[in-house]
Amino acid sequence: MDLDLSLAAPDLTARLVDIESVSGGERPLADAIEAAVRRLPHLSVHRDDNALVARTSLGRDQRVVLAGHIDTVPVAANLPSHVERDVLYGCGTSDMKSGVAVQLRLAALIPQPNRDVTFVFYDSEEVESERNGLLRLSRNSPELLAGGLAVLMEPTGGVVEGGCQGTLRAEVRARGKRAHSGRSWLGVNAIHEAGRILDVLRAYQAAEPSVDGLTYHEGLNAVYIRGGIAGNVIPDECVITVNFRFAPDRSAAQAQQHVREVFAAWEVTFTDVVGGARPGLTEPVAASFVTAIGGTPRAKLGWTDVARFAALGIPAVNYGPGDPQLAHRADEHVSLAAVADCEARMQAWLTT
Amino acid sequence: MDLDLSLAAPDLTARLVDIESVSGGERPLADAIEAAVRRLPHLSVHRDDNALVARTSLGRDQRVVLAGHIDTVPVAANLPSHVERDVLYGCGTSDMKSGVAVQLRLAALIPQPNRDVTFVFYDSEEVESERNGLLRLSRNSPELLAGGLAVLMEPTGGVVEGGCQGTLRAEVRARGKRAHSGRSWLGVNAIHEAGRILDVLRAYQAAEPSVDGLTYHEGLNAVYIRGGIAGNVIPDECVITVNFRFAPDRSAAQAQQHVREVFAAWEVTFTDVVGGARPGLTEPVAASFVTAIGGTPRAKLGWTDVARFAALGIPAVNYGPGDPQLAHRADEHVSLAAVADCEARMQAWLTT
Repeated sequence: MDLDLSLAAPDLTARLVDIESVSGGERPLADAIEAAVRRLPHLSVHRDDNALVARTSLGRDQRVVLAGHIDTVPVAANLPSHVERDVLYGCGTSDMKSGVAVQLRLAALIPQPNRDVTFVFYDSEEVESERNGLLRLSRNSPELLAGGLAVLMEPTGGVVEGGCQGTLRAEVRARGKRAHSGRSWLGVNAIHEAGRILDVLRAYQAAEPSVDGLTYHEGLNAVYIRGGIAGNVIPDECVITVNFRFAPDRSAAQAQQHVREVFAAWEVTFTDVVGGARPGLTEPVAASFVTAIGGTPRAKLGWTDVARFAALGIPAVNYGPGDPQLAHRADEHVSLAAVADCEARMQAWLTT
Repeated sequence: MDLDLSLAAPDLTARLVDIESVSGGERPLADAIEAAVRRLPHLSVHRDDNALVARTSLGRDQRVVLAGHIDTVPVAANLPSHVERDVLYGCGTSDMKSGVAVQLRLAALIPQPNRDVTFVFYDSEEVESERNGLLRLSRNSPELLAGGLAVLMEPTGGVVEGGCQGTLRAEVRARGKRAHSGRSWLGVNAIHEAGRILDVLRAYQAAEPSVDGLTYHEGLNAVYIRGGIAGNVIPDECVITVNFRFAPDRSAAQAQQHVREVFAAWEVTFTDVVGGARPGLTEPVAASFVTAIGGTPRAKLGWTDVARFAALGIPAVNYGPGDPQLAHRADEHVSLAAVADCEARMQAWLTT
């Protein structure tokens, strides 16, 4: 399969979408992208399994990283792509082959960008974290990801979304004493005791801190509760799984400490934690990006792969032509005008 | 298999235990009991599948019912029975072949009891209610169960336990609005809302009413709680299953109404309800029974089959030689002295 990078980003998106690349099956698309970027003499290309890094080396003062994942969620009878009234339908149109098309167009169109550019195309973003190609690259070749700002071209509806919040999950455990429910006063009901944990959650005031000029919004919520042994038994355990979404002014360790303090009266077991990412919008390179893209940047509240750049010390933002509400849906689509607009704005940033 | 009713109750218990009769497999034991009671000319015998009713018809002013189930839980490598230091070990020794042995001895020993006696031997008490032999008899031949007092010879440790409490289970449902946990304020967390239900449970003051001279002790408890959709979703539903154990001064319908009122703010769905049984200890026939047995009667807090007599309008008590703590255990056993004592006291009640 041959990718024609002379096609504008909207048309190129359709070509990318039609090369199926469900997580784990990215090889044909990675091969096609590799062949296309290897034909561009101003880029040096590195391949790591189905991830690719293509870089200019012009000795510019600044280097920016443009990253996108090339995998999709499973196809939902929505391939091949088709166009209806200037909208492209198909698996991966929004999330995020339109963003990848913009990356490839910039790689092909701008042999002399005003900043050195590192293009990252990676695999397995839509599956469990351990398989993530960007994580693998950050372990195998962190030097290839270096830069002053990273732009993750995930769908944001054409708005700059800075950084991201971290997320952790913890099990908070209420203990009791088992007894027959016919003589409940001989036991201690752990489900009733869990009511005290819910009191804490109901009273919790989530912070809305400003970080690098963007306002984040934390949240602490029960996402699971389970307890009970039998219909005639006073249960001796009730476990509430809480999810803490925390702003990037807290590290992962600080967020864990906060949760420990909030639930100091109970046993707390962390099941997963990933830190967030500062947006870095106070840096000049980021300011120039915001100016080129226009609009008012907002904080990214969900967790995204920008956090992997943050872990390498690189401020990062999310910006892409897709619509995040349409990701993973059978009727996933993208406005062709939005793709063209994104291509034009990114081109302006890297050339003027 | 031939049952020798000239054996005293302790020895007869061992014979009964050694005729295996796990629920559903009671036929050999029912056949043996039927043959034995049909040899007693003062009794008229009625068989319904593996349940038997054997009655005197002496025209006495009073009629009492002595009932016991002949099935056991599955054998736990604890058959045949064996005796160690005046204790009989084996499946069903406590629950409740020692009680059945006393019934059979009374049937054989007392052709002219001071009250007409109805002996009931029934199947499938240890399994789901719909298979219960006493329930089947109460539907097919309620007239055969008539009487002024019923004594269920379940293990009570030799103490009269009057009546029983009823029990119901209900699902109390908290509703919310689903949202991504990264933007939790767009949803309503049903698990947090369930905290209000737990507030009600924690504040609930259980009644301890006196009924026919015995003090019952109610209880309202969560026995299950479940909620949660995914680790990143604010859940829109949380369900608490509550178990209400209610004294026999409330009917099943009154108990349901009470639960509806307690949880008036939420959707309540009843999953099962069975009424309790009044002990009837204020009636002369019951008073004579208590005098004959001795000790201080206490209220039965768990639910037992005495409630089936209550449903027929017959006050009922629990009294038997077994130890309720040993029921269903691999090391189930019964004191042979306790069996002999029970036999003697019951004989005294029916003859003096």
